[in-house]
Amino acid sequence: MRVCLVGVGLIAGSLGLALREKNQTLSVVGLGRHAETLERGVTLGVLDEWSLDPAIALAKADIVVLGVPLGATANVLSWIKPHLPKAAVITDVGSAKGCVIEDVEAVFGELPVTFVPGHPIAGTEHSGIDAAFGRLFFGRRVILTPTERTSQEATQAVETLWSQAGAHVVTMSVEHHDRMLAMTSHLPHMLAFGLVDMLAGASDHEEILRYAAGGFRDFTRIASSDPVMWRDICLGNRDALLEALAAYRSDLEKLAHFVDQADGDGLEAIFNQAKSTRDAYRHWFES
Amino acid sequence: MRVCLVGVGLIAGSLGLALREKNQTLSVVGLGRHAETLERGVTLGVLDEWSLDPAIALAKADIVVLGVPLGATANVLSWIKPHLPKAAVITDVGSAKGCVIEDVEAVFGELPVTFVPGHPIAGTEHSGIDAAFGRLFFGRRVILTPTERTSQEATQAVETLWSQAGAHVVTMSVEHHDRMLAMTSHLPHMLAFGLVDMLAGASDHEEILRYAAGGFRDFTRIASSDPVMWRDICLGNRDALLEALAAYRSDLEKLAHFVDQADGDGLEAIFNQAKSTRDAYRHWFES
Repeated sequence: MRVCLVGVGLIAGSLGLALREKNQTLSVVGLGRHAETLERGVTLGVLDEWSLDPAIALAKADIVVLGVPLGATANVLSWIKPHLPKAAVITDVGSAKGCVIEDVEAVFGELPVTFVPGHPIAGTEHSGIDAAFGRLFFGRRVILTPTERTSQEATQAVETLWSQAGAHVVTMSVEHHDRMLAMTSHLPHMLAFGLVDMLAGASDHEEILRYAAGGFRDFTRIASSDPVMWRDICLGNRDALLEALAAYRSDLEKLAHFVDQADGDGLEAIFNQAKSTRDAYRHWFES
Repeated sequence: MRVCLVGVGLIAGSLGLALREKNQTLSVVGLGRHAETLERGVTLGVLDEWSLDPAIALAKADIVVLGVPLGATANVLSWIKPHLPKAAVITDVGSAKGCVIEDVEAVFGELPVTFVPGHPIAGTEHSGIDAAFGRLFFGRRVILTPTERTSQEATQAVETLWSQAGAHVVTMSVEHHDRMLAMTSHLPHMLAFGLVDMLAGASDHEEILRYAAGGFRDFTRIASSDPVMWRDICLGNRDALLEALAAYRSDLEKLAHFVDQADGDGLEAIFNQAKSTRDAYRHWFES
């Protein structure tokens, strides 16, 4: 079994480490634009070999994993397309799936039956191959969003790959994925970026950030995430994110209205609803 | 030295535990409305003694600590006022200070020179005496906001009290405190309550919360905070919170506009600003 990682950052790098630890008969080859990064991949144990030439790296690949930022998907697909083995299964790791499928269709004319859109729900605020670690996916979910065109064999192959990395694989529709991720990940990232941006704009922001650090370490941590990656996610999942932003802004407007009107009952009702929901699902949050 | 805790929940209870561990010559008496809670205070080691009668509990008190929700401040002050020893120093633990001073002025006619507004920057999402623990304030900040009327001796006495509980005491103006806390604590709590409320309202909220749990454990945790306490804080710090909410909503509107217009440069600029600010103060966030 030969896996080709196209782009070797935090996600693909961690996958390479996990696979090579788990499965000695599998070989991992890296394809990218920077020799230093790929050579670093060999040093760190992520890769068996690498090339800057797609014809060499992709030869005999059984599975090709696109580990590039969403915004680079179309260009990278065009670059590798002429060299893809006909039977090779292709998957990606992008945080939005509708836009990836559009890019694939634009490059290939139609979605190849061998293409399985994927999204590992794992990551840190760090990026790059040096941040990679083999246990990143352990016990985490990987969402696959095969379409009607996708072959069951291809989906099965990608499912096996992620299972070997220790992940739980679930499948769902593209639309469901994009809507759910908009609400549970993309919107909260916007809120964190917005909060830190707003605090940074205050005249006494140094003191303010010192106090914010005490209470919101984990929330503001995500504002240290890669700006280019998040720009691409926002643009890639634009419709679902706009919908989530609109719903959230309407909630916030309601809260501001209650504060403005000194409507204690209105505030308490929202806080109660939030607390009882959070408490009802406590087992998920605290596991 | 005799300290009277008026209301014995998480904050006052933890203070009682910390003081009794640190200072054997000090005695802590509890005053409240529920005998069971106060008796539980003795069992847990928070209190030396207690009474439901303010005349008994406050007799010979050197320092009186109001540990009640903001919304109860005025009523509780009226209740204890006739029984306060003339020289007793009074302090509180409320998360907003302007509204406490208004309540004190309303009850006493003018701010007593012995009143020192205080706010320990510590807490958990739990409340009540059973959640109390002696190390809650260890290494945390306590903000005092003495006014021009407050005597230096009174401020010094409260500073010593909190230092004995292991806290770092800082002083600042009422206005500065309320504005800073609105931005760094009250607003973020609104954002968390609003997010969980919004997610709870989705038709498939069970699945959505399951995914949210993976990424925003710590952010959503604060949505489990006491709804009544937060209602009171919102109403107590209304002006500063409205200002912070307005600034934040304007930031969010800008983000939504950039997403809507597919303005990648605009998004990236905000994300970069947030990341560089967060990274510049990394030592505070990661200490």
